[in-house]
Amino acid sequence: MSAADSVLRGEIHEQPAAAERQLRLGRESAEAIAAAIRARSPAAILIAARGSSDNAARYAQYLWGAHNRMLVSLATPSLFTRYQQPPTLRDTVVLGISQSGRSPDILAVLDEARRQDALAVAVTNDTASPLAAAASLCMPLHAGAERAVAATKTYTTQLLALAMLSAALEGDSARWDTLAELPGHLSEALRLEREVAVIAEGFRATDRLVVIGRGFNYATAFEISLKIKETSYIVAEAYSSADFRHGPSAVLERGFPVILVAPSGRVLVDAADLLELCQQRGAEVIAISDDPAVLASSNGSLPLPPSLPEWLSPIVAVVPGQLFAVALARARGIDPDQPRGLSKITETL
Amino acid sequence: MSAADSVLRGEIHEQPAAAERQLRLGRESAEAIAAAIRARSPAAILIAARGSSDNAARYAQYLWGAHNRMLVSLATPSLFTRYQQPPTLRDTVVLGISQSGRSPDILAVLDEARRQDALAVAVTNDTASPLAAAASLCMPLHAGAERAVAATKTYTTQLLALAMLSAALEGDSARWDTLAELPGHLSEALRLEREVAVIAEGFRATDRLVVIGRGFNYATAFEISLKIKETSYIVAEAYSSADFRHGPSAVLERGFPVILVAPSGRVLVDAADLLELCQQRGAEVIAISDDPAVLASSNGSLPLPPSLPEWLSPIVAVVPGQLFAVALARARGIDPDQPRGLSKITETL
Repeated sequence: MSAADSVLRGEIHEQPAAAERQLRLGRESAEAIAAAIRARSPAAILIAARGSSDNAARYAQYLWGAHNRMLVSLATPSLFTRYQQPPTLRDTVVLGISQSGRSPDILAVLDEARRQDALAVAVTNDTASPLAAAASLCMPLHAGAERAVAATKTYTTQLLALAMLSAALEGDSARWDTLAELPGHLSEALRLEREVAVIAEGFRATDRLVVIGRGFNYATAFEISLKIKETSYIVAEAYSSADFRHGPSAVLERGFPVILVAPSGRVLVDAADLLELCQQRGAEVIAISDDPAVLASSNGSLPLPPSLPEWLSPIVAVVPGQLFAVALARARGIDPDQPRGLSKITETL
Repeated sequence: MSAADSVLRGEIHEQPAAAERQLRLGRESAEAIAAAIRARSPAAILIAARGSSDNAARYAQYLWGAHNRMLVSLATPSLFTRYQQPPTLRDTVVLGISQSGRSPDILAVLDEARRQDALAVAVTNDTASPLAAAASLCMPLHAGAERAVAATKTYTTQLLALAMLSAALEGDSARWDTLAELPGHLSEALRLEREVAVIAEGFRATDRLVVIGRGFNYATAFEISLKIKETSYIVAEAYSSADFRHGPSAVLERGFPVILVAPSGRVLVDAADLLELCQQRGAEVIAISDDPAVLASSNGSLPLPPSLPEWLSPIVAVVPGQLFAVALARARGIDPDQPRGLSKITETL
């Protein structure tokens, strides 16, 4: 099967429709859950998730921090499962994010939250799942059945659900107006498919790369690197530009591939700095950005729609990365629907 | 300069003495800070750090979670610096960990903690640093001046300081008795240097690898991967065994190098599972473990001292990884004291 007609590619292209559904059907749940969270007035939010869902949680760390001034912490599930010594969840609201709602470790975190009388919220595609049953409240994802092993439409729908919860917590109608434009931005990003294929062809022989983003798009760097690993078997490591400076940048050398996620906004200055370092070392930079200077200084440019607010950009900027993962798999002769050794539901404790 | 007489190697060998100093000189500060934390009865602990110090923070996430039932969250410094929209720190104690005490972003987090009346604690080698001045309380590190760019004795001393704080918070004298044995364990781990050199020689041509640990040793996996990147310019990615199963394990293939950090304890079962997967795929596994079965099934075995409790093992298990990074640099003809493009104090906002 060629990637041109792969299940994965089909699901990537379903994302505008999935976002439209989530916006239409998900607002009532978002408002109800936001009201329940506000009533608790938590000191912290704890999110338990794995894989792509954990990358969605990273987005919430920044978005809920910046827009809702909430301290968002990512859970350490082994404390709840292997060690059976979970932290005290006093004044904490716990979210479990899972596509299938069947990850035993994420379920264990929500069970413990209920045991400690913390508000437990499930964010899942399957409202009949054990995770939904364990939670006090459920935010359903309207991504539709996802068949490809590598999550794409579930990921962007999770991000959108978390952004809708943030907007509901904030109670600012302008956020909802901005969110309503998301399906259009997603459709525009999907038009990059041909450019992506040309760039991916040039990287078919690479076996390692780094993906860099910061702030809101730290999540995007992680998610793009995960898609590339899942479909193309390349060691693709994600960093914030600040962490990359603290040691790992030593790996940069002539021809080293770097994917730079750099939408306009508060951290664009860091991307510009890093681009300069990459140029000094002769690294090959693929930029996902709406900034003309960043795009012009890169070896491969994937332009984002203009006038995309930074906080919304992670839901759009991941799309060229998803397309890149599929194109790279195809260029390397790998079937992106059948990653070796992976299955759709990964059960870990 | 050969690695045999490098500054970095010298500092690795200073670790038993540094640990002995920290245990002797640091207990009073640990008890005082623990009393101040207990008095606040925080809902969460927020730790701000970069690079190796951030890996030390990961250790605290598990140790303080398991032994002190505290919810430990890693900070997102850009919310405090670039975005200037920090989270509310109500009922939160904030720790800043920095070797130099001169990272502007870590300083910004502590400044905000003070502004919000949260207890702010500095953990640093330099008690005259801006970070120490910004904090309400300072836990001095007695690692001594660190000259190599890659942190080693500072890292293990940070872990020890965090373990001493945990013991002081717990008030259990048995923990202090166990901590007192650390310098001896470190000396024993340093005796692996010759075995490490032989194994590193076999990996001189590799340009990518993964390092896997879980629970208490999730931090160890991150720190070993960072040392290898800093000194040998290899893309070395760290994972928990659970996260690795959720997608990235697709990269495993014949000859792919895996460093498995697997001391005895609650998560050894995950390491054993992963070792089986590595064998099926023909990956080359270097095991850092005290478990005879794990060591016997690996391609390269680095035995840890027996009778090392799991919670203390991260301070010891990193040592063969540090030695491996130096040996690999030497095998690749790189001066480990001069990582390209890095300086000792990295200033990021």
